[in-house]
Amino acid sequence: MKPFELVLVGFGHVAQRFVTLLEELREPLARDYGVTTRITGIATRRHGRAYGARGLDAVSLAEGVRHGEAVGRAGDGSSSDFIRQIAAKSAAAEESRLVVVETTTLEIGDGQPAIDHVQTSLACGAHVVTANKGPAAFAYRALAAAAVRAERRFLFEGAVMDGIPIFNLVRETLPAVTPIGFRGVVNSTTNYMLTAMEAGQSFGDALAEMQAMGVAEADASLDVDGWDAAAKTAALANVLLGASLTPHTIEREGITPATGLRAVAARKMGRRLKLVARAGREGDRITARVGPEELAEDDLLAGLEGQQNAVVFHTELLGEIAVVQRGAGLTQTAYALVADLVTIGREVTAAERSARRARPPARPGRSRGGCGRR
Amino acid sequence: MKPFELVLVGFGHVAQRFVTLLEELREPLARDYGVTTRITGIATRRHGRAYGARGLDAVSLAEGVRHGEAVGRAGDGSSSDFIRQIAAKSAAAEESRLVVVETTTLEIGDGQPAIDHVQTSLACGAHVVTANKGPAAFAYRALAAAAVRAERRFLFEGAVMDGIPIFNLVRETLPAVTPIGFRGVVNSTTNYMLTAMEAGQSFGDALAEMQAMGVAEADASLDVDGWDAAAKTAALANVLLGASLTPHTIEREGITPATGLRAVAARKMGRRLKLVARAGREGDRITARVGPEELAEDDLLAGLEGQQNAVVFHTELLGEIAVVQRGAGLTQTAYALVADLVTIGREVTAAERSARRARPPARPGRSRGGCGRR
Repeated sequence: MKPFELVLVGFGHVAQRFVTLLEELREPLARDYGVTTRITGIATRRHGRAYGARGLDAVSLAEGVRHGEAVGRAGDGSSSDFIRQIAAKSAAAEESRLVVVETTTLEIGDGQPAIDHVQTSLACGAHVVTANKGPAAFAYRALAAAAVRAERRFLFEGAVMDGIPIFNLVRETLPAVTPIGFRGVVNSTTNYMLTAMEAGQSFGDALAEMQAMGVAEADASLDVDGWDAAAKTAALANVLLGASLTPHTIEREGITPATGLRAVAARKMGRRLKLVARAGREGDRITARVGPEELAEDDLLAGLEGQQNAVVFHTELLGEIAVVQRGAGLTQTAYALVADLVTIGREVTAAERSARRARPPARPGRSRGGCGRR
Repeated sequence: MKPFELVLVGFGHVAQRFVTLLEELREPLARDYGVTTRITGIATRRHGRAYGARGLDAVSLAEGVRHGEAVGRAGDGSSSDFIRQIAAKSAAAEESRLVVVETTTLEIGDGQPAIDHVQTSLACGAHVVTANKGPAAFAYRALAAAAVRAERRFLFEGAVMDGIPIFNLVRETLPAVTPIGFRGVVNSTTNYMLTAMEAGQSFGDALAEMQAMGVAEADASLDVDGWDAAAKTAALANVLLGASLTPHTIEREGITPATGLRAVAARKMGRRLKLVARAGREGDRITARVGPEELAEDDLLAGLEGQQNAVVFHTELLGEIAVVQRGAGLTQTAYALVADLVTIGREVTAAERSARRARPPARPGRSRGGCGRR
């Protein structure tokens, strides 16, 4: 069982938690899914780069970064160059065992350089798993096509609702079901703020609390102006509805101190104000919108308190299906990367196993006990 | 692309809808999953049996059954004998392309003869998909082991929450996550009745309405005495928590006209009474219970109206994850069988494809466009 070789592009909180989570799950991943890993490259924004063909001690490096140390010297060229260099040195790319773990932060202008990282990885024979919403929100169609051409996977379960399966749910467990739309509450910071403002807290205090807890984005506009929700909506619509949206082509209204007053007034009328993300087909067009909506109290989305998230899918065949996330945090986001890695691991090891056998699936034969004898 | 050969054991409403749904989904199943099918055997309880090596016109036979016609002559021996005879005649069993679609109704005494049907199918080289809760509720461990030995699949997504993925969700999309417990509302009839009784309807009228709609089981005790919920709880606990429960070892309290009065009283206090199914680990033991519980109004389960169902999983790694079913019906249950069939189809065709190639996964090579040139 050869290990998967991982290159981490981005080494912030999510990647650091990913590294420790990989250690915590080492045994079940190897035993149940045949997935073992070696981290050979780490590219950071402000703490240099590290490469080690035999594997880096990423847990120690993460510890060091938390104390302000660098993982290595500042590198020449971009992170995409770093990916190229490692892919050129390693046999793992040819063996379909090189995986780039992309965790840079969302750049709401154009989704770069994350899109470049994904493109380069695929072109160099690496699979990519990312927690960054940008690639699926800005360039899903092109990247999905590039992945098919490269015979590699481009996965991004962590882009929406952290580790709660959304994309995997539809892809793996709902075959032949085509969602025709969805609505959801997908931004934790604004949902917490609306709940807090209903209870009398000020806009500024509620936002400050979320920032202190590390939940809110460093740039508050990403949350309160609805950009994060719009990026998630674009990713969901592009992947599930076949849309070609970007966060900029989505109708978007965020929350302000005045929204807090509306939330209080709604609550008094037995209703709840939520920042709702929605998309659906209207004839040939996909329309998508993010904005505050007043919901009846018995609406599933109305009951989401604090940081809870949910997405309700509309399907023709099965009616509505809702998935609700009731706990959120770094571990959940890091787990999404692990789940995507396992998806890749299962496929690669299954393909290798079949190739080794090089014969049709097992033949129990009719003479087995229990069939003929009764 | 060879077709899968299907043998239908049980030909009631669910199987009849399965047959038409297969037709409706013929194109996406073939195009997207490489799954084509041929129904060669049908065994019914009161309408005889049919076998046709080249495929039966199951849609017409279903139409006939609805008008009281038989599908064929009454057969000799049991349905398990019928499965054995077909497996012996067909090359599909050896090719891992024989699938028994088991839709007999739950026998709450001991889960038979459905368990026999599953055992025989696996022993004869057939995969089994079933919508019957009995096999997983009474004999999961033995049947799962038999499936491993036979190198065939035993799948039962339709046993809980119809076509909404529960078992597949945990198995396919939450690798290395071990649920430590769950609670849910899993019986549509009693949830509808509780909602109706809150609004002033009588127990008898509410039950009669569910029976008239074909939602309630023919034997009302299965619903109102909590047996259906207990069977689902056993199946969930056995599969997800590794328990060895049966519906009879689960603490169980159903609903009565008096429960309706409790529901009305609870509602007046801003609370909701629901028939809650729950299981969890207590030390080394798994405890499980079905019974009415008063829930706070903001509890996700409290908000389930009418026939809605939900299961909330508790996990150490990800906290709570809830899946909510908002539309229920025959189509959903029939879809669960289709989804399980696709799971089998994906595996078999992937294994065949890999065996044909008999070489390691594709090698994009480093000279591809986009990797080196930038």
